[in-house]
Amino acid sequence: MYKNLFKLLLALLLIVSIISCKKGLDQTKKTKPSPKEIPFALVIHGGAGTIKKEFMTPEKETAYTKKLQEALDTGYKILENGGTSIEAVQKTINIMENSPLFNAGKGAVFNSLGKQEMDASIMDGKTLNAGAVAGVSRIKNPIDAAILVKDSTKHVMLSGKGAEEFAKQHQLQFEDESYFYTENRYQSLLRAQEKEGGKVLNKSNSKNKPDFIDEHKKGTVGCVAIDKSGNIAAGTSTGGMTNKKFGRIGDAPIIGAGTYANNITCGVSATGTGEFFIRTLAAHEVSNLIQYKNLSLKQALKQVIHVEIDSLGGDGGLIGLDKNGNIAWDFNTAGMYRGFKKSTGENVIKIYSE
Amino acid sequence: MYKNLFKLLLALLLIVSIISCKKGLDQTKKTKPSPKEIPFALVIHGGAGTIKKEFMTPEKETAYTKKLQEALDTGYKILENGGTSIEAVQKTINIMENSPLFNAGKGAVFNSLGKQEMDASIMDGKTLNAGAVAGVSRIKNPIDAAILVKDSTKHVMLSGKGAEEFAKQHQLQFEDESYFYTENRYQSLLRAQEKEGGKVLNKSNSKNKPDFIDEHKKGTVGCVAIDKSGNIAAGTSTGGMTNKKFGRIGDAPIIGAGTYANNITCGVSATGTGEFFIRTLAAHEVSNLIQYKNLSLKQALKQVIHVEIDSLGGDGGLIGLDKNGNIAWDFNTAGMYRGFKKSTGENVIKIYSE
Repeated sequence: MYKNLFKLLLALLLIVSIISCKKGLDQTKKTKPSPKEIPFALVIHGGAGTIKKEFMTPEKETAYTKKLQEALDTGYKILENGGTSIEAVQKTINIMENSPLFNAGKGAVFNSLGKQEMDASIMDGKTLNAGAVAGVSRIKNPIDAAILVKDSTKHVMLSGKGAEEFAKQHQLQFEDESYFYTENRYQSLLRAQEKEGGKVLNKSNSKNKPDFIDEHKKGTVGCVAIDKSGNIAAGTSTGGMTNKKFGRIGDAPIIGAGTYANNITCGVSATGTGEFFIRTLAAHEVSNLIQYKNLSLKQALKQVIHVEIDSLGGDGGLIGLDKNGNIAWDFNTAGMYRGFKKSTGENVIKIYSE
Repeated sequence: MYKNLFKLLLALLLIVSIISCKKGLDQTKKTKPSPKEIPFALVIHGGAGTIKKEFMTPEKETAYTKKLQEALDTGYKILENGGTSIEAVQKTINIMENSPLFNAGKGAVFNSLGKQEMDASIMDGKTLNAGAVAGVSRIKNPIDAAILVKDSTKHVMLSGKGAEEFAKQHQLQFEDESYFYTENRYQSLLRAQEKEGGKVLNKSNSKNKPDFIDEHKKGTVGCVAIDKSGNIAAGTSTGGMTNKKFGRIGDAPIIGAGTYANNITCGVSATGTGEFFIRTLAAHEVSNLIQYKNLSLKQALKQVIHVEIDSLGGDGGLIGLDKNGNIAWDFNTAGMYRGFKKSTGENVIKIYSE
């Protein structure tokens, strides 16, 4: 009698022990996505920098807020109508590229030779297909060129004249240099050159008020979207750094640094001093922290910005959107132009730190 | 009597069960580095492709083996004399760049316009500093230009004419186009153009025997080293893909794709169809699988090549060296020129799959 009772007890305890052990091991594996409906959504940024309320005029604040809302609405409408996340990212970024308020397309910053060289990239989280252009001039919407590289070549990245010729062959819209020119970006270049030493193209006009985001050489636009099919796409477009060396490539066109999307984790777009985002592979790192360390999107963004980028002395921001439609952002600058809009009804636009 | 015997048995089985469970969990945690002395070592590759014994002549095999050994000996001597891993990587790669046997520097492949555009990158695992050049012509040793970008600019990546002007300002050695030209690479271009359609520059000479590694458009040189201080460096240099579009940037100059080094994990250099290594962030992924999933270097390389790259339809190889001086490589092509040399006395050179 005792013998059978103990045998039973023994068997039970062993089962409990094995189950609890298995549970412990399972916690280190990927958790399965919940079967709940994924909301469609998009999140954008328009650059991070020393954006403080005291530097801002009410007119400027309104202009930025309106343009960010217009960008969000454009992408949202595409998603609402059943469009793909790639298309939503493209058209949302186009709005910001076409506005002189942001350092991308029209209003891109100037390099040390007084030229505008733009970078852009896109990644499709479903297929991991990606496209990028680096150091292109006169292409009205560099993000369109990046998408063209993704869809129409066996390559991921084209640069300089080769990328421009390719864009021409595919009838992308080109504009004269005057289209991209803005006086405040040019004055920013001259001030940067006076400050940083080396060759100075001209004397800056002291009457021209410093544009804080330029003065700190950050500024990029980006968008991450998830569509009704649960496909994530991420894209980034930029003029790079004011007074950058001719030929410098930042993080924006580097897949894994400035842009990354993967349906099993998240999509990410970066803005900031690009070199630090390259050295940390910031966007890919966020995805891996979710996939391999089971961090939430919010925790992963925090780790990359406030630990990894911080420890190298870098600055900037990240926006992200995970496979469940959760949205988060983080930055270690004073502010970041940012916003999101979700099918759950949320619509948020922010500029300053809070 | 029975009661006590079963209690004892029960207790013993539970202890065994708990220990085996703990062991399982421990395997998912980071193993601490052993206090044993880290051997200095280096590992190299000279490209992966359809390298099969039946395609090889004894003379060619000897030439490759001798050159790989010369490269290994050069880097080893630097490490043995207390030099840094960066210097060892540079000088080892220089040997391969200066040899027409490899697709880097002299003997680089031709793009669709019949030009040679080279890429290179370097990363310092101690500081995570990195440098890269993309699409440069006439610079004798592109890896030297990458190191110069790392050390003499605030940037990570310079491309095209901007990178060349920068290299000139720093008195890097330039060579005429004729220095880089090799007849077999040019014939490879013509064959590729005939096969792939589109513009054909000339008719290929059918007497010229196909160079298998070119025909498959792979070929890159790379080196990862760990020095006596335990600092890891990784570098990669390439002419890219035969018949690539003008301006195409592959994985070799992309930090995290073709090259990555981090003292807390490993150093990695890639070779293969670069686009797949960009989309998977192959080199950074290896490091993250070690850091976050506690895979060994060998397991991580296997996962990236045989699961992640394979699933996208990509091909190529990776070499790696971890913080304890362990060396591993993996590839899904028929062969890869490769070798390593360690302070423990091992010296290995291999060409084919085995």
